Amino acid sequence: MRPTPRVETFPANTPAVSQIFTTVLSQGPLTRLEVARRAGLSPAAVTKAVRPLIEAGYLVEDAAEEARPALGRPANPVRVDGGRALFIGVKVTGGELIGVLTDLCCRIRVARHVPLTDRTTEAVLPHLTELVHQLLAEAEDLGTPVLGLGVAVSGDVDRAEGVVRYSPFLDWRDVPFAELAAMTTGLPVTVENDVRALTVAEQWFGAGVGLSDFAVVTVGTGIGCGLVVHGRVIEGAHGVAGEIGHVTVDPAGPPCHCGNRGCVEAIAGEAAILRRIRETTGADVTDTAQAVELAHRGAAGAREAYARAGEAIGRGIATVANLLGPERVIISGEGLAAYDLFAEQIRGAFAAAAFGSAAQCDVQTRPLPFEEWARGAAATAIQSFITPDDPHPSR
Amino acid sequence: MRPTPRVETFPANTPAVSQIFTTVLSQGPLTRLEVARRAGLSPAAVTKAVRPLIEAGYLVEDAAEEARPALGRPANPVRVDGGRALFIGVKVTGGELIGVLTDLCCRIRVARHVPLTDRTTEAVLPHLTELVHQLLAEAEDLGTPVLGLGVAVSGDVDRAEGVVRYSPFLDWRDVPFAELAAMTTGLPVTVENDVRALTVAEQWFGAGVGLSDFAVVTVGTGIGCGLVVHGRVIEGAHGVAGEIGHVTVDPAGPPCHCGNRGCVEAIAGEAAILRRIRETTGADVTDTAQAVELAHRGAAGAREAYARAGEAIGRGIATVANLLGPERVIISGEGLAAYDLFAEQIRGAFAAAAFGSAAQCDVQTRPLPFEEWARGAAATAIQSFITPDDPHPSR
Repeated sequence: MRPTPRVETFPANTPAVSQIFTTVLSQGPLTRLEVARRAGLSPAAVTKAVRPLIEAGYLVEDAAEEARPALGRPANPVRVDGGRALFIGVKVTGGELIGVLTDLCCRIRVARHVPLTDRTTEAVLPHLTELVHQLLAEAEDLGTPVLGLGVAVSGDVDRAEGVVRYSPFLDWRDVPFAELAAMTTGLPVTVENDVRALTVAEQWFGAGVGLSDFAVVTVGTGIGCGLVVHGRVIEGAHGVAGEIGHVTVDPAGPPCHCGNRGCVEAIAGEAAILRRIRETTGADVTDTAQAVELAHRGAAGAREAYARAGEAIGRGIATVANLLGPERVIISGEGLAAYDLFAEQIRGAFAAAAFGSAAQCDVQTRPLPFEEWARGAAATAIQSFITPDDPHPSR
Repeated sequence: MRPTPRVETFPANTPAVSQIFTTVLSQGPLTRLEVARRAGLSPAAVTKAVRPLIEAGYLVEDAAEEARPALGRPANPVRVDGGRALFIGVKVTGGELIGVLTDLCCRIRVARHVPLTDRTTEAVLPHLTELVHQLLAEAEDLGTPVLGLGVAVSGDVDRAEGVVRYSPFLDWRDVPFAELAAMTTGLPVTVENDVRALTVAEQWFGAGVGLSDFAVVTVGTGIGCGLVVHGRVIEGAHGVAGEIGHVTVDPAGPPCHCGNRGCVEAIAGEAAILRRIRETTGADVTDTAQAVELAHRGAAGAREAYARAGEAIGRGIATVANLLGPERVIISGEGLAAYDLFAEQIRGAFAAAAFGSAAQCDVQTRPLPFEEWARGAAATAIQSFITPDDPHPSR
């Protein structure tokens, strides 16, 4: 039997210390003065908070470029020592587990895929445990402690309670997965909705760094959305938020699994696109690669299915922009493989449906490898580690 | 010439003091211990902050119910002395100015309406100035200082800059109204979008007290929405947010002034309902009172127009719930006068289109007198007074 990994805690005794560290983590290297400015804290508070973080090895001070002033605050920038600690992130999909070992700066060191043949919790948990143990062994070879595990699952997840309330895709209901995985791995575990996890990774380490209001829209099997407002990811008072996939595009459109008609997902989800292509072309396409090939060969029905999907996504993004006014919308997800087939329609529909200055929102695409979902899970573990008591303080 | 009113500033030197005062203002009377718990601060910080606020007369300590402990923290609840200061709120509509004089707890002391025949800034400003001077005279009679003026205007308003960027209804573009009104009244002026102003009043003094995430939906000439997320009103990175009126309900529906078709406002706005009734019944209805009467007399076309409007509003609210997951949605506005004609459709469409547990959101109606819009303007002036340096801190 493997030894239980030692669990180290972060030396942050106040929200201000967590905030200072997060600022350096996502935007560093920075001087103490610049950290103070960006975090809205006093330079004295930053200087005081930085000292124990340097002593514990989480922050390092870059070598002096200039002579250190005889008096006053050190002027050298500080940055996070990514190699100080490791984290594991696992994304659970219907067909496989994707696991990554990242450093404290969320850079992927190792990635592993484990196929799943059964989606029940009983079948998934042992595979996940084995995957985590493999990654722990890799960490041991690197001589660096693993300080947390993040697990990303689609559906309604209560992160604070560590419970998967309902994942339609996995058919899990009220599964206390954080507790189960903590028992089998010995690690502190964070369970989060997959799109929100990806959004945390973008907020701290990606295209959302430094923005207080942005959205991540994921295109693929489902159409998902993570929303950051006032600097924090929206969780939803009742567990549901960011359901851009169920914005109605056309009440006379195709039926959706949610019971309505013409939702974005019922037009632009992978299955909907394939169904539409089969209906209009008669071709027996069963996966996206075939569909994209057909469209690239010029089949009108296939091109039209992607064009409709793009319009639906563009309208969904405009709805988000009209309600929330984000600075940026980042489009990502495996569906971007077909992006050339619907990019124009996304932009066209967004521009037409955005209200007034909401059209100024910066809509970007960001193709991400599938491991990015697992990296998102690791980002939530890093977030929980840094802000141990209250990852989602209410104001 | 009238003397320039003396301008007093609030004795808050840190965001924590503002937060403590706001907690007592919206939720008091509270003991210091309870304020600390709700504001997430230490009891010592609250005790220290309360002292100068009592000395300056903004807070009062209620008479001891029990004997004061010989040692330790005073156990008596503290509350805001509403009579300590007065504020003026003005709502600018196309046809009139509505002005209110409120106390520090945003209770209306005096309300006045002034008709407008011209919507230009040049015409509105002198009327507004005269209205403010009348209310200042009333305040003088009460012997209480007026410490701020709030002005609520429909459209795209940049509160931080004090500029009305674009108000389609008034046909104002880039008007630095806060500066203009400050010059003519001598008061510190806050200009805010009218729906957001109403939302601030609900957040601090109404059905949103104690909630970190809720929405206000206003039904009337337009269909508006104010959103509070993570305890703060969303402003929108580019000035646009809460545009529930331009959520698409039916892409084949009636044309909207925004250039699209089938927006919520194009179906459920006052003008859209009247137009629909004229089309289907042939009756020459020109205002809502006639339309409501026709519907109450059982005219099928009139009832159908309201039913359609209710469905559109319900779908719009479901879109907000699916994206943001608020705890509560408060429906208000002058359109509620016809509420019995579409309440059932609002609830039915909301329930059908809400995704999963988003349906648990508490949808309430709250009929408010038209002065409430002006009270919202006063609430923004109170907010600016209490948090003078940064009413909208970014994180």
